Amino acid sequence: MKNFSKIGIKEDARTELHDSLKLTGAEISVNVLPAGTSVPFVHSHRQNEEIYIILRGEGTAVTDGENIGIKEGDCLRLSPSAKRRFFASAKNSLKYICVQVKADSLEGYTTSDAII
Amino acid sequence: MKNFSKIGIKEDARTELHDSLKLTGAEISVNVLPAGTSVPFVHSHRQNEEIYIILRGEGTAVTDGENIGIKEGDCLRLSPSAKRRFFASAKNSLKYICVQVKADSLEGYTTSDAII
Repeated sequence: MKNFSKIGIKEDARTELHDSLKLTGAEISVNVLPAGTSVPFVHSHRQNEEIYIILRGEGTAVTDGENIGIKEGDCLRLSPSAKRRFFASAKNSLKYICVQVKADSLEGYTTSDAII
Repeated sequence: MKNFSKIGIKEDARTELHDSLKLTGAEISVNVLPAGTSVPFVHSHRQNEEIYIILRGEGTAVTDGENIGIKEGDCLRLSPSAKRRFFASAKNSLKYICVQVKADSLEGYTTSDAII
């Protein structure tokens, strides 16, 4: 496999990176939820931890029945079993990145994994 | 461990999420490289794949000696062994997210890992 791959993404409702970038350690999606809408279902995961990074707008992450306010600059970790559903505010669309990784899969990182 | 954790981040040079969010499957950093500057070293990794998502600005990712132009909306996967160094353009700062995950660690994802 080539040592790198690159794509450019646009302001689509959802862009998934796994297949187009040939990722092997994560699925990453970039999402835009229009104002006043929500992801239409509650979900959890079997194995995967999710990390959400809010790029724009604000809304609510309902997690195991608890309302967590989210806005630009907020980052959220969810355990696999957390039952989650995301809502954009009535006023602004919510743009966010969702990183899906296998829980407990990371070993070394940064200084303990890098070669300089 | 609690089912979720959350932090808010600011426009800092580098914010690392692993420790503050108690991540177990990734290290994620949010970075701002000032105009005309670069990460001051070339690096590669032992085990970890990296995915870069460019949030703002433009620059160059020098990868194994090849210049890859990068700009807002671009996403890049780098194999562990790729020797990389990032440069912001002379004109604008470069804001990007770097996701570090163990290569080949992902098993199921999205529909094959989610419970709805």
